[in-house]
Amino acid sequence: MGDRRARPRIVILGSGFAGLACARALGGKSADVTLVDRNNYHLFVPLLYQVATAALSPADIAEPIRKIVRRHRNIDVVLGEVVGIDVPARHVALAGGRRLAFDRLVLATGSAYNYFGHDAWAVHAPGLKTIDNARQIRTRILKGFELAELTDDPAKQAALMTTIVVGAGPTGVEVAGAVAELARYTLARDFRRIDPRRARVLLVEAGPRMLTAFPDDLVAYARQRLDRLGVEVMLDHKVEGIRAEGAVVEGHLIRAQTVIWGAGVRASPAAQWLGVEADRAGRIPVTPDLSVPGLPGIYVLGDTASTPDAHGQPLPGLAQVAEQQGQHLGKALAREIETGAPLPPFQFRNRGNTAIIGRNAAIFDFGRGRHLRGFAAWLLWAIVHVYLLVAFDKRLIVTFQWLWRYLTYQRGARLITGDGAGEGTP
Amino acid sequence: MGDRRARPRIVILGSGFAGLACARALGGKSADVTLVDRNNYHLFVPLLYQVATAALSPADIAEPIRKIVRRHRNIDVVLGEVVGIDVPARHVALAGGRRLAFDRLVLATGSAYNYFGHDAWAVHAPGLKTIDNARQIRTRILKGFELAELTDDPAKQAALMTTIVVGAGPTGVEVAGAVAELARYTLARDFRRIDPRRARVLLVEAGPRMLTAFPDDLVAYARQRLDRLGVEVMLDHKVEGIRAEGAVVEGHLIRAQTVIWGAGVRASPAAQWLGVEADRAGRIPVTPDLSVPGLPGIYVLGDTASTPDAHGQPLPGLAQVAEQQGQHLGKALAREIETGAPLPPFQFRNRGNTAIIGRNAAIFDFGRGRHLRGFAAWLLWAIVHVYLLVAFDKRLIVTFQWLWRYLTYQRGARLITGDGAGEGTP
Repeated sequence: MGDRRARPRIVILGSGFAGLACARALGGKSADVTLVDRNNYHLFVPLLYQVATAALSPADIAEPIRKIVRRHRNIDVVLGEVVGIDVPARHVALAGGRRLAFDRLVLATGSAYNYFGHDAWAVHAPGLKTIDNARQIRTRILKGFELAELTDDPAKQAALMTTIVVGAGPTGVEVAGAVAELARYTLARDFRRIDPRRARVLLVEAGPRMLTAFPDDLVAYARQRLDRLGVEVMLDHKVEGIRAEGAVVEGHLIRAQTVIWGAGVRASPAAQWLGVEADRAGRIPVTPDLSVPGLPGIYVLGDTASTPDAHGQPLPGLAQVAEQQGQHLGKALAREIETGAPLPPFQFRNRGNTAIIGRNAAIFDFGRGRHLRGFAAWLLWAIVHVYLLVAFDKRLIVTFQWLWRYLTYQRGARLITGDGAGEGTP
Repeated sequence: MGDRRARPRIVILGSGFAGLACARALGGKSADVTLVDRNNYHLFVPLLYQVATAALSPADIAEPIRKIVRRHRNIDVVLGEVVGIDVPARHVALAGGRRLAFDRLVLATGSAYNYFGHDAWAVHAPGLKTIDNARQIRTRILKGFELAELTDDPAKQAALMTTIVVGAGPTGVEVAGAVAELARYTLARDFRRIDPRRARVLLVEAGPRMLTAFPDDLVAYARQRLDRLGVEVMLDHKVEGIRAEGAVVEGHLIRAQTVIWGAGVRASPAAQWLGVEADRAGRIPVTPDLSVPGLPGIYVLGDTASTPDAHGQPLPGLAQVAEQQGQHLGKALAREIETGAPLPPFQFRNRGNTAIIGRNAAIFDFGRGRHLRGFAAWLLWAIVHVYLLVAFDKRLIVTFQWLWRYLTYQRGARLITGDGAGEGTP
């Protein structure tokens, strides 16, 4: 870099797990850090499916960025949308004309759902990336039961009580399980004409296997738990179309009130901003120290990066990968600035890959053949997730809500609000 | 009535404090009750200003109606919007063409904010009646500080950090105090360029006095507490216009990011549905047993009714009036159905009129000269409001959030989401 300013300006784009960890590692160090995000909060995305299924409120899993970094006076927070990066001039352009000059730039803008060329499907099948997504799904599901209660047409009732989840990765499995539990337990006795326990939840997967990242025995266990919850798992079934009425699967239209997309992600347009080549999923290949080859002082983290593991395979798009990378880079940059030491290579330490299927049922894969499943895995899952929630009061509130929900089968956030809340009463 | 069905059909429109209390009092009685609301939840409106100022989440103060009445198998819940009432044919028409036949009808559809003929103002100055209102206000206020941090123009900064509250009734006083506290305590140290403690909060009242329903000593106390919080109280000031840039007060435009309307309410259009004469505020005058003169079997409750008190003055539009009326009518109808006893007249028992100005500061007027103010009133206010929250888990969660907030000055729900969240970055 040959940076001659006493305090280099480090701009971090995105305050997800990677960007936030990087900023925090630079807190109090000899650098002026600017953390840019289009939202004013850090969102704990792994629990977003619980907002979509009325178990938690958005504020339970979102924390104001300013609050998190408040005590670090060298970190500046900017609410803004990136529109471009001028690499030679070394500045980031934000919507509205504002520019941020940088000496070092960290891209951690995450990923969005990939509809594989069918962007029109997004309206009918929201993914699980934003609070608005989750609220939309919650409203659709709950509204479906309300409308089913009001109609006497059995075919309409069935469609209104049907949810299709596309993609059987961890998110798909988790949300399918949660919707089934919402219908079977929470709503079971709330209606007079319909029986919510007869609600259908379909988990449709184009490939021959669900939870591809997990070993066979854990997948078999997850499948058995989903079966017990009444989730219909359809492997080797391709979704060919998604419309307002439902999804076309292998040539047949399955009518459904709610379709949820969890089939694949695409990195944010960071590669376009930098003018570099991306891989098939839009990710920017980085060197072991997380920098972009040929662009000194520019780094890419988390879902936006393609980082090779020990076997040359790219690391998966997991929160723990993003967080470890952010922390690694933040520490490395702080040391480089203070001592001139070169950036060490990043090494991923697998903390365990996990998915939750429902009450008392989760799976953990710690690698090297060490697995955990069932109640113990579920308890560990809950402890880990509560621990990872940033703020202390949220940890307690979420713990309390979960405990209460566990004991009563109730859910606290069953609100039909916002977009679509008022439409279509039959 | 001369009703000959063994189980009369009672339709209740609205599940606010009045409608819900009426339905619950009829739970398990010899009547088929249908409770209609356009939302699937009962909203605890008195705490909505805490959602608008980021202290609570919407789900903390909203409870699914179905969950509340679940154990009463004779109560049916219908999500629907009333479009008309056919009094001679004795049915209610809902949007979408559905009809509900009734033997007895209870109207408890509440009130909406009254912009005194300036309905266009509603877009720029939301009131505090719905969750969407509160989210909109929260987003505007928080967004204002974010945008102020990004601009270098002092005039713009000042406008972005200004909130105007129109109307100095209890809602106006409460929200003005809460916005001032948000700026002075919660946000105080979160920004680098602006000082949120310099934010202006204006409480503009057309009349010569604030909190007209309260006695002089309590009003003086409230005024002193607002002064201490830096709220600028402008009595005898008329708002002549409201636009995107702010409000025109006595001929001058005061630029403000957020304008909140709390100046007056108008009853829901129930009088039009029934084809009866309403008073100036749109309320339907009722007899002491809460029935509509000349329309046997039709009753009006809460904000929709004009009920004379002992001195012939209409009772105020308070939650406690609505709740007592609902409970009274529900019990009276149950007894009438079972024993044929005529409906007794309703008598309001004043539980204390209250307003909260901020941390440690509230006022209570119990009537007959008995007043309470300061920390004791604030504590009582908190206990009463937590007690009145319908569900047990919400009580605990809200208590916990308040305690935490009291100890740390933090707020849990500082989210910029939904409408307007992404617009206008300078």
